[in-house]
Amino acid sequence: MSSFGVLFRVTTYGESHCKSVGCIVEGVPPGMSLTEEDIQTQLTRRRPGQSKLSTPRNEKDRVEIQSGTEFDKTLGTPIGMIVKNEDQRPHDYGEMDQYPRPSHADFTYIEKYGIKASSGGGRSSARETIGRVAAGAIAEKFLKLVSNVEIVAFVSQIGTVKMNRNPFDPSFQHVLNTITREQVDASGPIRCPDPSVSTAMVKEIEKYRGEKDSIGGVVTCVVRNVPVGLGEPCFDKLEAMLAHAMLSLPASKGFEIGSGFAGVELPGSKHNDPFVFNKEDGRLRTKTNNSGGIQGGISNGEHIYFSVPFKSAATISQEQETSTYSGTNGILAAKGRHDPSVTPRATPIVEAMTALVLADAYLIQKSREATRNIVN
Amino acid sequence: MSSFGVLFRVTTYGESHCKSVGCIVEGVPPGMSLTEEDIQTQLTRRRPGQSKLSTPRNEKDRVEIQSGTEFDKTLGTPIGMIVKNEDQRPHDYGEMDQYPRPSHADFTYIEKYGIKASSGGGRSSARETIGRVAAGAIAEKFLKLVSNVEIVAFVSQIGTVKMNRNPFDPSFQHVLNTITREQVDASGPIRCPDPSVSTAMVKEIEKYRGEKDSIGGVVTCVVRNVPVGLGEPCFDKLEAMLAHAMLSLPASKGFEIGSGFAGVELPGSKHNDPFVFNKEDGRLRTKTNNSGGIQGGISNGEHIYFSVPFKSAATISQEQETSTYSGTNGILAAKGRHDPSVTPRATPIVEAMTALVLADAYLIQKSREATRNIVN
Amino acid sequence: MSSFGVLFRVTTYGESHCKSVGCIVEGVPPGMSLTEEDIQTQLTRRRPGQSKLSTPRNEKDRVEIQSGTEFDKTLGTPIGMIVKNEDQRPHDYGEMDQYPRPSHADFTYIEKYGIKASSGGGRSSARETIGRVAAGAIAEKFLKLVSNVEIVAFVSQIGTVKMNRNPFDPSFQHVLNTITREQVDASGPIRCPDPSVSTAMVKEIEKYRGEKDSIGGVVTCVVRNVPVGLGEPCFDKLEAMLAHAMLSLPASKGFEIGSGFAGVELPGSKHNDPFVFNKEDGRLRTKTNNSGGIQGGISNGEHIYFSVPFKSAATISQEQETSTYSGTNGILAAKGRHDPSVTPRATPIVEAMTALVLADAYLIQKSREATRNIVN
Amino acid sequence: MSSFGVLFRVTTYGESHCKSVGCIVEGVPPGMSLTEEDIQTQLTRRRPGQSKLSTPRNEKDRVEIQSGTEFDKTLGTPIGMIVKNEDQRPHDYGEMDQYPRPSHADFTYIEKYGIKASSGGGRSSARETIGRVAAGAIAEKFLKLVSNVEIVAFVSQIGTVKMNRNPFDPSFQHVLNTITREQVDASGPIRCPDPSVSTAMVKEIEKYRGEKDSIGGVVTCVVRNVPVGLGEPCFDKLEAMLAHAMLSLPASKGFEIGSGFAGVELPGSKHNDPFVFNKEDGRLRTKTNNSGGIQGGISNGEHIYFSVPFKSAATISQEQETSTYSGTNGILAAKGRHDPSVTPRATPIVEAMTALVLADAYLIQKSREATRNIVN
Repeated sequence: MSSFGVLFRVTTYGESHCKSVGCIVEGVPPGMSLTEEDIQTQLTRRRPGQSKLSTPRNEKDRVEIQSGTEFDKTLGTPIGMIVKNEDQRPHDYGEMDQYPRPSHADFTYIEKYGIKASSGGGRSSARETIGRVAAGAIAEKFLKLVSNVEIVAFVSQIGTVKMNRNPFDPSFQHVLNTITREQVDASGPIRCPDPSVSTAMVKEIEKYRGEKDSIGGVVTCVVRNVPVGLGEPCFDKLEAMLAHAMLSLPASKGFEIGSGFAGVELPGSKHNDPFVFNKEDGRLRTKTNNSGGIQGGISNGEHIYFSVPFKSAATISQEQETSTYSGTNGILAAKGRHDPSVTPRATPIVEAMTALVLADAYLIQKSREATRNIVN
Repeated sequence: MSSFGVLFRVTTYGESHCKSVGCIVEGVPPGMSLTEEDIQTQLTRRRPGQSKLSTPRNEKDRVEIQSGTEFDKTLGTPIGMIVKNEDQRPHDYGEMDQYPRPSHADFTYIEKYGIKASSGGGRSSARETIGRVAAGAIAEKFLKLVSNVEIVAFVSQIGTVKMNRNPFDPSFQHVLNTITREQVDASGPIRCPDPSVSTAMVKEIEKYRGEKDSIGGVVTCVVRNVPVGLGEPCFDKLEAMLAHAMLSLPASKGFEIGSGFAGVELPGSKHNDPFVFNKEDGRLRTKTNNSGGIQGGISNGEHIYFSVPFKSAATISQEQETSTYSGTNGILAAKGRHDPSVTPRATPIVEAMTALVLADAYLIQKSREATRNIVN
Repeated sequence: MSSFGVLFRVTTYGESHCKSVGCIVEGVPPGMSLTEEDIQTQLTRRRPGQSKLSTPRNEKDRVEIQSGTEFDKTLGTPIGMIVKNEDQRPHDYGEMDQYPRPSHADFTYIEKYGIKASSGGGRSSARETIGRVAAGAIAEKFLKLVSNVEIVAFVSQIGTVKMNRNPFDPSFQHVLNTITREQVDASGPIRCPDPSVSTAMVKEIEKYRGEKDSIGGVVTCVVRNVPVGLGEPCFDKLEAMLAHAMLSLPASKGFEIGSGFAGVELPGSKHNDPFVFNKEDGRLRTKTNNSGGIQGGISNGEHIYFSVPFKSAATISQEQETSTYSGTNGILAAKGRHDPSVTPRATPIVEAMTALVLADAYLIQKSREATRNIVN
Repeated sequence: MSSFGVLFRVTTYGESHCKSVGCIVEGVPPGMSLTEEDIQTQLTRRRPGQSKLSTPRNEKDRVEIQSGTEFDKTLGTPIGMIVKNEDQRPHDYGEMDQYPRPSHADFTYIEKYGIKASSGGGRSSARETIGRVAAGAIAEKFLKLVSNVEIVAFVSQIGTVKMNRNPFDPSFQHVLNTITREQVDASGPIRCPDPSVSTAMVKEIEKYRGEKDSIGGVVTCVVRNVPVGLGEPCFDKLEAMLAHAMLSLPASKGFEIGSGFAGVELPGSKHNDPFVFNKEDGRLRTKTNNSGGIQGGISNGEHIYFSVPFKSAATISQEQETSTYSGTNGILAAKGRHDPSVTPRATPIVEAMTALVLADAYLIQKSREATRNIVN
């Protein structure tokens, strides 16, 4: 459904061709400084039309806080936010109306809801993610204030062009330890901080754009300064909530945390992260971090890192042999300009969902910490 | 927390060293035939001690239905189920008490809850999954009755020994199309139906057992005959719920559906699944199934398939250099016999969680189907 | 929190002094005809300034649907709705700033949230109910379409002036059987359809207005044509959800259903509602309806009726001896004009919450009906 | 459904004629001392067969903690509890099988679930409340430890015999200020601490027992030492959750808090509770308490008090004219002995549900307190 979270909870609305998109965020701690600019930054990073790597539609995507703050402070009441749909062009998809787009949501939406929206895929539109990003920006600000949490997502693969993502390689761990959002943005719209591959990634995208085609990619995300103790076993383990969040994103096809799929090849004697006492912060740390910062579903204070693959966008201008809704074979070529790669724009969305998961887990754990070990 | 699902909802309790483990299942449709044997089959498949591949503890794991049925029919009221902990051995872990096991939940549990259970990792124990399997067996029976849904999980990798799992390879798709649970079980406790690799997998496990070590693996799962229309965007897309379910399992480190991580390398023109009208069942089908049976977060009627990596078990008898809780370096070697590979036993658990996700999505969609397109 | 319902679910935002108030409604069945006018009718009935019985602030309260419909049909996606706050006057309460208003939410809000909103009571403002009424209007339309459900609330008491509300009196049951919303509105802003008391009620309110005081009242509500089988025991019995809904309204202090408090005086032999077969509709009906249409937490098809007392409004212009926030005794006299009785305006809000409860219960039960008694 | 609460959450199972009844309690703070005896006390107070005022069935109702504690301390993991159904007598209701009992749940259960349980009303059985009482006992212990919360429920009316319950009468307020559970129990099984009416109440019950009839009553409950700030507007106001909880109890027909229905007759100038600074505890208190300890949905630190009417029990041995399921008129006289008044036994159940509501609200508010007013 359209709500996510228990105490820190977002509910979103809106699709491509309606008046506005937006969200209501419940459970934001009161008395926190918050302005529209705090939110706008990530919305602008999410916005299409930032370069020729993205779709040229010039949506301005200005957020307007409706409620829940006064004099730039949160009140603890729900924060309503809206972003107007300025560039609706409701007939854009009209010519494709006979065809459900292959691998798009057109077919499943009409089967599920029994009604066809002019946008085809309804809420599967990328505009749906605006509400997530707005809510995530609040969560991120909160996490920064309480624990200096840093969340940085970056593009680690486009098509066959890959950054080193080997979890056992110290140089990849170094990237995770040090990368900043500024570095990511300095790479330009490709959002890959590794100059040895980012140029090739841009070329890969441009190649497919030239062919009126699209291409997939992988977003990797690291979270630093996570408090120990977040996550609610057994069903709402921290990695389970992150996986839920990531697989709820349009076009995502997977999730791996820490050593992920590669980790299964290592025996326990090598995969286990031994503990070592750290004098600096006075607590146990792990020597390695194959666990990706989570053990038993609960954060252990090490960096959380994970990757999410995004498939190539379904809507392409290249001709495709397929069938109409009524079962006639034919050729579909989508009109208009389409994003050849959604992956770079997915980075702020991945960051937003990560922040939402962590803020909610944080609020729940704070309640436990305040009430545990009552002396009897 | 310990509940999962909206309408078809399971709540579980229990850890290693308590009287029993069990669950309450809410929302089971009334009037359905249900006996303890329907549930026992999967519990027995989950049970340790089935062969030398697994831990020799001889837990009998007999389920006892407490409520919610009469004369072997469900009443629509909550079904309480318990499985006694017959072989508790509460002091088994005693000697390891000074050390948090590396990559286990011992450390995070004490940090989160502020109290140390004698089992160390509390609910991170594999026994916690008994309640899931019991509930999942009911969900599975329900799905079989309403739509002949078939859920088959199998081991596709142990350590470095892999089955072909290439989503673009017709021979892998053939496996997905045809594999049965009987075939999986015919392979013996390794639960890999491909004889060309299953022997090597067994050897891999035995090698690590001999070294008092453990090894990871991958479980792949296919679901056939899924009704079109399941999944609740935007946050509770069907793949999001499956990912949530799978990452909530002990030791799981990832999830990929359909073409997964490999799919990002294909351009849209090749990755898209074109539609084609199928005269036999009178509806649109897709030629390929890179989507893995889900588009826009909603099932499209094709097979759902996904893979889940499980890391090597954390508890090993081999000596490990690590630190005590209090920060002193030392050597930990776990007493007792430990499962060198949890992966084969994870197959019924993966099936159970899959069934729980689908049953819940099915109930929600049935409500929509019953109320949509009211004539005005 | 700010969400209500499971499948048919509303989330609201907004307080007195912000840009807008509104809501997101999830789970509205797709393909239903819906326009802003369908919603506006009840919003207008809720609106203050309709007569001298109410506060003269002239809020226009025009609803704007943001999403979830196209060409006046619901899409099955979340329906976002906003109502602008046109007449904000944020400094109106300024002079009362030193004093927490007695029996208002000023004190508890600052204690709970640790921050003072300029409106004092934050979400306890009556404007918060706009989102409920907008959502309820959709629920009501849905219930009308699927089962011709009729929901009629009316004022049955103002101060000491009471309509006959004796559940055992046939004349009261006759009112419940026949009353229409048109009759209620025909009584004017007092919304009491009984001419023998409505004039006295108006006088009662005017008396207290003259004294710069306020007065309480009771709203009674009847629901006809409720399908049999709604309500989810054991915790979410239909009357439990109705009570939850009603006690969530500002100023409400109670709830009684069917025979209510009076019913405890009757022995079972007289209180029990005997069954009798009704040839007309071919099913069992009850001769009497002391149960108020619900038995065992589940609707039995008879009329549901209940009453809700609303206390006198806390904000009055009359001088009150009380204390400042800092503990100094003094005299508070609220500036501005204040509603001497909120009770009449509460009628559409009671109707809205009733509709939300029933629509949600209906959707859940439809799922059960679609899946129960699967033949094995 | 069968779960209640957000962070402190109980899920129950079980009906009259199954192996056991019980519950799972999630969110209990870890490290709290807890034994079966802590729970048994209230279960025993709930138990039938304590005197001739109650049904003579001698159910022993011994609770067995299954999980979630070790060495009498809570672990923070779910607490599973079961109580065996020792005296099942599954055929007791057999002779009544043709007749749905008037005002019982027999009819609505079969209509809703489409299947007839041998107990008739399934979960509407009073045994269902055992899980609530067990969970509530844990909540109550927790509240006692963190804030010395005192919850005392008592019988304030049986049939037409009433205690003074006038909220504006200082003598009633004195009862609320001072009454203890010991005083309630000292009155014997009638649980009315006012000797001027308790004897008449016993006679009232005995009269109806002699006539094979039943009679209703009212339970009043007071909660002292409630922390300020509990309750989650706008939908989950503290009184809304209490009303939800109370109306979810079998046979309850209403709820009123503070001045309740009587309060509507007072103008704001008299009904408002003025603030006064209390030097002793250094904070604002109210002179009167017509609000019943809650303002704007949030506890204000004054005593919470409310009343709940319970109708006469539906199952009586006296002959009743009614109809069979199939529509034939006839005479039903229930076999066996039946409780002429459930009201006295409802007192620990009311206390349990009150504790569950408050514990959950407390946990949520603790999270807010720990995170509000972060300095920016």
